[in-house]
Amino acid sequence: MTSAKLDIVAIGDAIVDVIATADDSFLEEHRLPKGGMQLLTAEEADALYAAMGPAREISGGSAANSMAGAAALGLNAAFVGQVADDQLGEIFAHDMLALGVRFETPALEAPPPTGRCLILVTPDGQRTMNTCPAASHELTPAALDPELIRSASITFLEGYLWGPERPRAAMLEAARIAHSAGRSVAFTLSESLCIGDRREGVLGMVESGVVDILFGNEHETRNLTGCGPLDECIEALSPKVRTLVITRGAEGAVAAENGGSVEIRAAPATQVVDTTGAGDLFAAGFLAARLRGRALEACLEAGAIAAAEVISHFGARPEADLRQLVAL
Amino acid sequence: MTSAKLDIVAIGDAIVDVIATADDSFLEEHRLPKGGMQLLTAEEADALYAAMGPAREISGGSAANSMAGAAALGLNAAFVGQVADDQLGEIFAHDMLALGVRFETPALEAPPPTGRCLILVTPDGQRTMNTCPAASHELTPAALDPELIRSASITFLEGYLWGPERPRAAMLEAARIAHSAGRSVAFTLSESLCIGDRREGVLGMVESGVVDILFGNEHETRNLTGCGPLDECIEALSPKVRTLVITRGAEGAVAAENGGSVEIRAAPATQVVDTTGAGDLFAAGFLAARLRGRALEACLEAGAIAAAEVISHFGARPEADLRQLVAL
Repeated sequence: MTSAKLDIVAIGDAIVDVIATADDSFLEEHRLPKGGMQLLTAEEADALYAAMGPAREISGGSAANSMAGAAALGLNAAFVGQVADDQLGEIFAHDMLALGVRFETPALEAPPPTGRCLILVTPDGQRTMNTCPAASHELTPAALDPELIRSASITFLEGYLWGPERPRAAMLEAARIAHSAGRSVAFTLSESLCIGDRREGVLGMVESGVVDILFGNEHETRNLTGCGPLDECIEALSPKVRTLVITRGAEGAVAAENGGSVEIRAAPATQVVDTTGAGDLFAAGFLAARLRGRALEACLEAGAIAAAEVISHFGARPEADLRQLVAL
Repeated sequence: MTSAKLDIVAIGDAIVDVIATADDSFLEEHRLPKGGMQLLTAEEADALYAAMGPAREISGGSAANSMAGAAALGLNAAFVGQVADDQLGEIFAHDMLALGVRFETPALEAPPPTGRCLILVTPDGQRTMNTCPAASHELTPAALDPELIRSASITFLEGYLWGPERPRAAMLEAARIAHSAGRSVAFTLSESLCIGDRREGVLGMVESGVVDILFGNEHETRNLTGCGPLDECIEALSPKVRTLVITRGAEGAVAAENGGSVEIRAAPATQVVDTTGAGDLFAAGFLAARLRGRALEACLEAGAIAAAEVISHFGARPEADLRQLVAL
């Protein structure tokens, strides 16, 4: 195993967030499950967009947000994801490169367009996501640069991209390449993976040893394991992965490793404006601290600080100087 | 003269702002005059964009921002401006319509693309604008709906659009239609109009009676008149227009009408994040109060409150409930 040139490479959705405020009544009227993420067709997205209030556009994508955070924390980060050759694709690519994240996946020449996520933020700061993945789900294993994967200490895989077949194949291939080079694989769960028919597939993937570091929130890990109390979820999942990290929103977070576990409280948030990206930035902070050799508790704390920053403003990418805040 | 169905219609640039933070050293390095607005070619815009940090996109355009404010203040507003049939054009149109602003100018099918303004915000909240107007400057008199102009109490013209020939012709035609229907014409000066060769043309236009309500900042009116002290500027300009409104940033604002003038202080700003749109929202607040029959001082105060709101966050469109803040 040669030493890694890159700290982390992520594979995930390449999308631009379209963020508007909305009242709870708007969510009810449009039957949008508050706090969740639903996939929309292009027609559904157009209809919802037409009904939404004025918006701001900020690059997003779960794992891409994590890489934005990783770069802001001083890591050498790269991102693999599929945009189209259009204005939103240019915006996404610009924002990755401007953050110092290596992003070389060629844009699709033909339709569909670059994906977007229509995010409705209610007055309580909760975000309800309505994703039209479009080009983002056209990612194929051919888009992978094996050398890039091999060169990174951690390959970070986004659960939202586990649903469609070709991106899933790309992620499995990336995990195989990473492991064969002696690197680690991190995976972040998403709500829809942990319920229905997908549950068994994800559990099977975790049991087969694909994942070294597993991120999820309390809700997701409960659904995935079928357990009630959190300690039972940890007992069920932690033997299957090297490191298990469970975020609990305002309750803090817990991590399990080597048969033990540590728990922290949430970092104090100055204000909660928009919770989009909290989990993504938590993962970024955790992994940045881990790559700098910090103990498990310090990794959780770094995650909590990064998450508290991103929920203090609109958009899922850090705005403050994360390096100074987290002080690794 | 029939009663007006619409309170206000504006003709202006239809552009999306691309907003990033930057240090003063970045402005110096790229020779960007701080606080100003410069026009960029597509190539220059691409080069500057590549050098800029990660950005957020929010619909902009000076007069369009004023119409966003007007609608937020409860006016019946319409906007005329040229976008292209592309993603930024869709964003611009969505945001206008979502605000309740009538916007019916058909999108250009062929290049150039929708215009954008690369805005660099320095830590002091000052904005430096770098505009690539593209489709926005392709507006022609043919895009005007005379019935729309006739139906509005006020036709509001954007100085930034006075430079290129066809949009200037469209604005002059709109002013002619408005006056022939017994309506008022407002004009907002821009920096570049008040210097060099353009100065005489603008003065001539004002002297010929095109403008009933003239908005400008202190700097612009000084350059336009060639006067030093502000009261001399007022003396030079106010006989030429029915109402003269001069904004003075943190110093407040002054208005002159019927041979007298009133002055106010700036409204207290909770924080100064991004001064983009301050003048645009001042005009919106002033005109909304005027259309509601308020006295000159109350109009200035409404403008100051709307301006204070827009500089408290990124983006040149109001985010707070302006109707409640201004309470007309």
